[in-house]
Amino acid sequence: MQIAIVLFDGFTALDAVGPYEPLEHLPGAEIVFVAEEAGPVRAHTGHLALTADRTLAEVTRPDVVVVPGGPGQTPQMGNGRLLEWLREADTASTWTTSVCTGSLLLAAAGLLAGRRATTHWLGLDTLAAFGAEPAGERVVFDGKYVTAAGVSSGIDMGLALLGRIAGDEQAQLAQLILEYAPEPPYDAGSPHTAPAHLVERLRTRSRFTPAG
Amino acid sequence: MQIAIVLFDGFTALDAVGPYEPLEHLPGAEIVFVAEEAGPVRAHTGHLALTADRTLAEVTRPDVVVVPGGPGQTPQMGNGRLLEWLREADTASTWTTSVCTGSLLLAAAGLLAGRRATTHWLGLDTLAAFGAEPAGERVVFDGKYVTAAGVSSGIDMGLALLGRIAGDEQAQLAQLILEYAPEPPYDAGSPHTAPAHLVERLRTRSRFTPAG
Repeated sequence: MQIAIVLFDGFTALDAVGPYEPLEHLPGAEIVFVAEEAGPVRAHTGHLALTADRTLAEVTRPDVVVVPGGPGQTPQMGNGRLLEWLREADTASTWTTSVCTGSLLLAAAGLLAGRRATTHWLGLDTLAAFGAEPAGERVVFDGKYVTAAGVSSGIDMGLALLGRIAGDEQAQLAQLILEYAPEPPYDAGSPHTAPAHLVERLRTRSRFTPAG
Repeated sequence: MQIAIVLFDGFTALDAVGPYEPLEHLPGAEIVFVAEEAGPVRAHTGHLALTADRTLAEVTRPDVVVVPGGPGQTPQMGNGRLLEWLREADTASTWTTSVCTGSLLLAAAGLLAGRRATTHWLGLDTLAAFGAEPAGERVVFDGKYVTAAGVSSGIDMGLALLGRIAGDEQAQLAQLILEYAPEPPYDAGSPHTAPAHLVERLRTRSRFTPAG
């Protein structure tokens, strides 16, 4: 089973690495990082680059597509080559997935119209504008389409997807290896629980360019 | 404030990216990925490389040192150049930190003797053999030494450290941006909650080379 994780300038690193880490525990899986050009691809802060080992043109029929988001996602919504690749890959994929604002790229490619989906909480209105039905869950399955909320939710998505593909026990094993028993030091990870003035500050600052 | 995240062949990607992502929300911070040689450094699965932008020799006095773990950590415990760099960097650091079996490298460098610390649950005995006092918490502060448990705990560590450095509000803002309100699909992230046969399988398979 081939899993393609798509990189582009300005992606958010944890969006990509979050699902990658549990999916590496899928027996026999080949995970390949892809981008328009092979080589290092910078995350949005500029301080980190992940290597794309293959070009989009070289990986045309992955079984699983994973699309991260990030501030760099906005210009990609007008990148016809990438959107065409997503549409083509989707015709053959078993699972088409995203983390954070990666779902806005799937939506821009026309793949989420009429489907239940999610994205970073700052991007839900944009998702709706593409005809998707924003859902309140952290990980949303709608047929073969799996979308996750902001940034860190990709870990939950990766484990849930691993469970669907390889069974609950394999996913539990991965969770144990990753010691994923989270203990956030604050209760500020959702706009429903974070201090209201912080939610408002982010809404004002970055309605259409969420950080994840 | 300069934050150096140390890479070596066979590290676990989430160990490094977990703390990186929240620490990127430290105002004015420069995060630099370092390794013995600059260039792409492969994570333990071989499917992903992160770029080390600077060599260890070029970054000698970071304010914060972050050491990830991973299966590749075991041979590094005999890497005198790396251990010497850790000791030198520690003489000037404000915070010396690790994720997963990265603490075994700190311990091998002689930095954790007599200190409360933690590591991946499979590595706690090894940590004790270096004279550290294994603690049961997910993130352990002992003075300027901050160690985290397995793999995914680096996110919790990064947020907690951000809070100590920049204040609770900045850390809450980062948590909200990262939408870190985790919902693991299983309750198997700790040896205390995972199915016993899976815990036993991992203990048998990899006592001294945990995957994280």
